[in-house]
Amino acid sequence: MSAPVLDIADLERRLLAGERAALARAITLVESRRADHQAAARELLQRLMPRTGGAQRVGITGVPGAGKSTTIESLGCALTADGHRVAVLAVDPSSGRHGGSILGDKTRMERLSTDPNAFIRPSPSGGALGGVTRKTREAMLLCEAAGFDVVIVETVGVGQSETVVADMVDIFVALLIPGGGDELQGIKKGLIELADLLVINKADADPAKAERSARDYRNALHILTPAHPDWTPPVLTASGLTGAGLDTLWGQVQRHREVMTANGARAARRADQDARWMWAMVNDRLAEAFRAAPAVAALVSETEGAVRAGDLPASAAADRLLKAFGL
Amino acid sequence: MSAPVLDIADLERRLLAGERAALARAITLVESRRADHQAAARELLQRLMPRTGGAQRVGITGVPGAGKSTTIESLGCALTADGHRVAVLAVDPSSGRHGGSILGDKTRMERLSTDPNAFIRPSPSGGALGGVTRKTREAMLLCEAAGFDVVIVETVGVGQSETVVADMVDIFVALLIPGGGDELQGIKKGLIELADLLVINKADADPAKAERSARDYRNALHILTPAHPDWTPPVLTASGLTGAGLDTLWGQVQRHREVMTANGARAARRADQDARWMWAMVNDRLAEAFRAAPAVAALVSETEGAVRAGDLPASAAADRLLKAFGL
Repeated sequence: MSAPVLDIADLERRLLAGERAALARAITLVESRRADHQAAARELLQRLMPRTGGAQRVGITGVPGAGKSTTIESLGCALTADGHRVAVLAVDPSSGRHGGSILGDKTRMERLSTDPNAFIRPSPSGGALGGVTRKTREAMLLCEAAGFDVVIVETVGVGQSETVVADMVDIFVALLIPGGGDELQGIKKGLIELADLLVINKADADPAKAERSARDYRNALHILTPAHPDWTPPVLTASGLTGAGLDTLWGQVQRHREVMTANGARAARRADQDARWMWAMVNDRLAEAFRAAPAVAALVSETEGAVRAGDLPASAAADRLLKAFGL
Repeated sequence: MSAPVLDIADLERRLLAGERAALARAITLVESRRADHQAAARELLQRLMPRTGGAQRVGITGVPGAGKSTTIESLGCALTADGHRVAVLAVDPSSGRHGGSILGDKTRMERLSTDPNAFIRPSPSGGALGGVTRKTREAMLLCEAAGFDVVIVETVGVGQSETVVADMVDIFVALLIPGGGDELQGIKKGLIELADLLVINKADADPAKAERSARDYRNALHILTPAHPDWTPPVLTASGLTGAGLDTLWGQVQRHREVMTANGARAARRADQDARWMWAMVNDRLAEAFRAAPAVAALVSETEGAVRAGDLPASAAADRLLKAFGL
């Protein structure tokens, strides 16, 4: 029995009508490695393109234990109660390794996962970060076409995943745990660089401690030049558990949107993200084709080894490999 | 009249004997765009490779006015007085634009430039940062083969130049100007991330203010995880003008070398730098060949424009361009 022929026009129609099953099916297409599925996904995305771009794209990161799931659930429920339609996606480059996924256990978002105005999709499993990123970016576009006006992309911040999530959203939020002095030390450098908004979470447990942490971060942020002159990342306190401070958090997300829309930075950020993304895909495929070329593959390991050992200048090594590729 | 044939073996011999004119000539070869010069430079580097790697490679950055030239001059003279041979190179991606160079005006290092145990080379002019970087990296290897045991690479920190300098040295030093509270705000984010050592310069003018700045930076650095568990970047005060604190600075450079040699991190950093450098050159040349292919060139502008405008998915755009390239 052959697989049923995909009716892309029908899938498009049902997705645009907001059918959750159609959205789930479309994301599965995007995630599939089958060549016919990939071709179908490309056609679907192309058709849907005019209907994308309508969501507020929010990235949220935090170390394990920072309260991401609890906060996203509280925030998501507050937003749907307010009339929004909220999609939650995840980028977790580690999910392929241990077979899990940060959002795999949907029971961690019990209320939100049964909310008719929310859509939760676990991290696509397997593959390199580049592959996971492509799938998540395209899933985001599909959610927008399906009428979700808020897309939250969650990442646990392993390796480069924070950078790639920051590069696919309008605003990047870092959830931090209260701590003082030396306890702040655990924060990854890259996190502070990327965040448009810092939230000291779990403030309910010890509000004074959370406030001290917020002050410490504000002082520390003073030595950094903001990424955009019109926006200095605010440091807030909140509690994903009680919901306290989440209205302020969302207020700042809205203020960011207003400021960065008015000055044109939001549109420019999206255009730059899309162009970088196109070139990243081009360069990845070029590098892949290069390494796969038999003449190159035969030389790579020995050549890189000689460079690492200091026996061969990097420039001579590059020449040798490029010559093998015919350049 | 044809150009004289290059005698690479003779140039190699004279360079290894420490002849400054031979070193200068070899760097000119590396910087030349002529194909025969580039081939000669490759051959020379290949021959000299076993004699490279012997220097302590120190990167120094700072905004204009941070006192880089004064500090390098004082430090360099102290080092040559102590029996070292010191080479000073520069990476200045802006030098091609305004025709100048951070080290172009050698009178800024009057004493060091006439010191027989020092060698100062201005930033190579013109070309993209990648080209400038290649030339400077290779000039560094030539200086090592010529017997310089300290190579200082200076950068003014325009664009990505700090990152590329940090990626070619053993230790990266940031020179900062004293300031307090809001005055610290001007510091580029990337700088703090890359520095192995921070120096509050010009401490002679107001030692208490410099000490306060150092304390502020130390507090701020607390929230950042050190790049290596064995090394937390120290924050020192110094005066390039009077020389005060430069012995402590050099003591920290030596301590960094000892710690990072003992734990193997220094050798690993160099091997990683070389391998990254080889791949960066390969990827640059691949991207160049890609964009230069007529079928790609004919499509690039329209395709990238459609992506930026949100009319074409980035993945479909990448496919279109790769197909034009034959992949």
